[in-house]
Amino acid sequence: MKSLNKITIIGVGLIGGSFAKGLKDAGLVKTVMGFGQDESSLRKAIELGVIDEFSTDMQTAVVDSDLILLAVPLGVMEAVLEEMKPYLRQGTIITDAGSAKSSVITSAIKVFGQLPEFFVPGHPIAGKEKSGVTAADPALYLKHRVILTPTEHTNADAVQLVTELWQVLGANVEVMSAEQHDDIFAATSHLPHLLAFSLVDLLNEHPELGNVFPYTAGGFRDFTRIASSDATMWRDIALTNSTAIVKWLKNYQASIAALTELVETQQGEQLFKLFEDAKSTRDRHIGH
Amino acid sequence: MKSLNKITIIGVGLIGGSFAKGLKDAGLVKTVMGFGQDESSLRKAIELGVIDEFSTDMQTAVVDSDLILLAVPLGVMEAVLEEMKPYLRQGTIITDAGSAKSSVITSAIKVFGQLPEFFVPGHPIAGKEKSGVTAADPALYLKHRVILTPTEHTNADAVQLVTELWQVLGANVEVMSAEQHDDIFAATSHLPHLLAFSLVDLLNEHPELGNVFPYTAGGFRDFTRIASSDATMWRDIALTNSTAIVKWLKNYQASIAALTELVETQQGEQLFKLFEDAKSTRDRHIGH
Repeated sequence: MKSLNKITIIGVGLIGGSFAKGLKDAGLVKTVMGFGQDESSLRKAIELGVIDEFSTDMQTAVVDSDLILLAVPLGVMEAVLEEMKPYLRQGTIITDAGSAKSSVITSAIKVFGQLPEFFVPGHPIAGKEKSGVTAADPALYLKHRVILTPTEHTNADAVQLVTELWQVLGANVEVMSAEQHDDIFAATSHLPHLLAFSLVDLLNEHPELGNVFPYTAGGFRDFTRIASSDATMWRDIALTNSTAIVKWLKNYQASIAALTELVETQQGEQLFKLFEDAKSTRDRHIGH
Repeated sequence: MKSLNKITIIGVGLIGGSFAKGLKDAGLVKTVMGFGQDESSLRKAIELGVIDEFSTDMQTAVVDSDLILLAVPLGVMEAVLEEMKPYLRQGTIITDAGSAKSSVITSAIKVFGQLPEFFVPGHPIAGKEKSGVTAADPALYLKHRVILTPTEHTNADAVQLVTELWQVLGANVEVMSAEQHDDIFAATSHLPHLLAFSLVDLLNEHPELGNVFPYTAGGFRDFTRIASSDATMWRDIALTNSTAIVKWLKNYQASIAALTELVETQQGEQLFKLFEDAKSTRDRHIGH
């Protein structure tokens, strides 16, 4: 693939920093520019070899950039696009790493009047316990999935370039519609996160139980691990992917209501079948 | 503590086998007798030094025993008590390892007409991925909690002896009522298990999604790990602790309905507060 003169990472944390470092290590980019608000964190990013330069000024950061990665919370995507709009030249490719895609597209349409031809919405399915640039790791995306959700108006060369950059980092790139992406991740990621937050919230100093956490064991620890996720990020996901999330929350409520009925009416055979099917499904598809 | 002449383990799997091996290793018991149906597994238990002798005949197994541990599925507790009833001598202490306690007490009352003075209901909070006697481990209960739920009619010396045996294995013994036990474990263990089974069941080949499991990541794997638990055991728990489980399923349904409302009406501040409270609660009480 062709080498790039300048790419800009908006938000140099775990996600943006790992993308930056991977491309720098691959020697494909002349200058990796970081943009952010926290100067000390950006200085740290230079020390760690994650970026070459940084600016806290948007114009300096994006001018003449070949590609801009938005690795910022979903809640500020629109404001960031608005801020960079005056400084974008024709042909600069923009991509992002947001966990909800329809809302990012809606934001871009609001800011630009239509979805820019060179905007390639994306979502790398990767993460770590730790966050921040000190956790940035060029191998973060290795063998991980990256979903791109271009529309029929998206420039094919732009999609191709973004695909190749993720592939350089070892990722498996898959293309689907934003709607399909949002539905799948509402069901498989957003729903369980909300369920885990909700269980911890329900049991926290419940008047009938007091502090029950000392009685929990490994199963509870695993089940609720995702309830230790960042509250700002999950508020943003809940608000931006709300349609799909509400749909799956309601589907799940119906499942729980049916299960409650089975327990209440002592349907041993049906309970066994449900548990056995779930177990064999999980063992087959997920494993340990 | 005084040494015992004979103890009997009914069901020599992970739970019963670990108890047996720990007491044998401590040299406190002259004969550890195993009872079960699977002779090859019982032979294996002798080979592994878990038990000294075995019998598939209940009379031989329990006659003249000082203490009997019932480490069998909840669904067969009553039948096992019925089977051993004719061979019990006055003073033989019976304890069990079932995850629901009111139902075990109810079974004992059905079989004996009242809860026998020497019956000490118990629940060791320990487990492993692996099951069966080959996984038996004398350190399984080390620093784990064991809940005993005697009633006011239970003989105090019997409670004391059962307590001391668990303490020999390094466990922390706690006494509470069967009702309180069942309520706490319905909320902290039975509820999350049923929620995990239910999520896998909902997403298994859902007509709108097809096979979504390839899109799941570590969060989903952790959240659903307990859905790989044994279906027979969980059917028995769902059936025997149904009152408390139904109560907590309904409490949880109300929580999810409220959360759905927050997402649907875009209540960002309240969502943030719920997630942040849950995260800080979990970080404080559970940690990684």
